[in-house]
Amino acid sequence: MGCGFGWHCQYAVDNGAVFVVGIDISQKMIEKAKQITNTDVIKYVCMPIEEISFSDNSFDVVISSLTFHYLESFDDILKKINKILITGGDFVFSVEHPIFTAKGSQDWIYDDKGNPLHWPVDKYYTEGLRHATFLGEKVIKYHNTLTTYLNSLIKNGFEITAVVEPAPTKEAIASILEMADELRRPIMLLVSSQKK
Amino acid sequence: MGCGFGWHCQYAVDNGAVFVVGIDISQKMIEKAKQITNTDVIKYVCMPIEEISFSDNSFDVVISSLTFHYLESFDDILKKINKILITGGDFVFSVEHPIFTAKGSQDWIYDDKGNPLHWPVDKYYTEGLRHATFLGEKVIKYHNTLTTYLNSLIKNGFEITAVVEPAPTKEAIASILEMADELRRPIMLLVSSQKK
Repeated sequence: MGCGFGWHCQYAVDNGAVFVVGIDISQKMIEKAKQITNTDVIKYVCMPIEEISFSDNSFDVVISSLTFHYLESFDDILKKINKILITGGDFVFSVEHPIFTAKGSQDWIYDDKGNPLHWPVDKYYTEGLRHATFLGEKVIKYHNTLTTYLNSLIKNGFEITAVVEPAPTKEAIASILEMADELRRPIMLLVSSQKK
Repeated sequence: MGCGFGWHCQYAVDNGAVFVVGIDISQKMIEKAKQITNTDVIKYVCMPIEEISFSDNSFDVVISSLTFHYLESFDDILKKINKILITGGDFVFSVEHPIFTAKGSQDWIYDDKGNPLHWPVDKYYTEGLRHATFLGEKVIKYHNTLTTYLNSLIKNGFEITAVVEPAPTKEAIASILEMADELRRPIMLLVSSQKK
């Protein structure tokens, strides 16, 4: 869901998936994904993931990487995912971390010399619309609390099987100076779950 | 675990518990708890919770409120709790939220007029010792990431049944002016789990 260039679709195929559907709202992404992945096992569909309509119990796995923080309702998509998954099916996703999305500016507080002092958190319990800038473009995102991400999962019939806030490796930190700042606050939340 | 004045012990008795053990490291707390709760169903023990030693599968429920962030190892206490709980037994706890404990100073960043600007997060992935001040006293705490709290639970054989970041009620916000700031960042993390 939100397949972008189709990397996760390809990963699924490489790991034995016999049929994969990749969904993205961007026609450009879909075109690129078709070029890169180049296999008949993957079917690409250009549409908003909120509008998916598949048969009940028809997928073994649902994967989504950094997409759900663009959706107004996490609960709505969860209900749809639960329906299309088989019992025991895996639902694995990543989102921007609530610490990262809360204030909305998505930037450090700096000292006079431009060094990051700390990461600001504000409006944590005020869920919803945030206006951020990404690569010079204005982007609309939605902030959800951790409670919303995790408790909604449980309430919608999923068992949480792993929660990870990924950090850069020692090698990455050693080779890229700014990478050390990535240990000062989490940027992503990865969750693995299973339909009960 | 970390029973303080025994409120949760009393709550357990009020809800039908036939035998309750309350553990606290403070003899003063235990003395006060004995006065307040005044029932033979509760046995109070003054000791560090890290040193508990009970029979395997001997408890239906383990409750701990705002204690584990004083422990050096969350994993060690989890292993002990898992052993003493029956299968299907409930383990419910609260800790100070990782957002609250990360930087260590446990205070807002203020503007020139003393208004809270935002809550600072720093050193998130650097787990361990923090020096904070509480009611004028220096207090030692331990910061853990969310990953450590939740994934350790799963790895130690618990199913997470609820995750809640409590927020003040509308009534509380309406009656106490400063309470509105409590919606700007979480201070506590509540987790409910079950031994699988």
